[in-house]
Amino acid sequence: MTPLRARLGRTIRRLRKAGGYSQESFADRCKLHRTYMGAVERGETNISLDNLERIAKALGMTAGQLLLEAEKER
Amino acid sequence: MTPLRARLGRTIRRLRKAGGYSQESFADRCKLHRTYMGAVERGETNISLDNLERIAKALGMTAGQLLLEAEKER
Repeated sequence: MTPLRARLGRTIRRLRKAGGYSQESFADRCKLHRTYMGAVERGETNISLDNLERIAKALGMTAGQLLLEAEKER
Repeated sequence: MTPLRARLGRTIRRLRKAGGYSQESFADRCKLHRTYMGAVERGETNISLDNLERIAKALGMTAGQLLLEAEKER
């Protein structure tokens, strides 16, 4: 099973692109640094609840909904 | 709206008690320190994805399911 960090990163990338955001504009929208967002999308960070919530809100969903999506990701 | 950290802490405490675990035995089960678990249950920590997943597994659920439960908590 792919670690959840990696699946979450892929889910965020997929939903961010589906929303038509570049990584930079999406990071701005989340008020997170672009390099941090890149690390999240590559599954390199052990993201905190607060940042997960921030990203989920920018995607129009809750943190729980975003994690459930990630758990369905390959 | 109560911050998600606080709702998550209350949800973990509720489910941990429903499972019949003391805070100490539950912390052992999660391989987390008892004082850390206390802080999580009081909503004082910005918990990481890895620790959220560890606690969720000890409760027999996924991290996404646990967060969804927390989002329903008052």
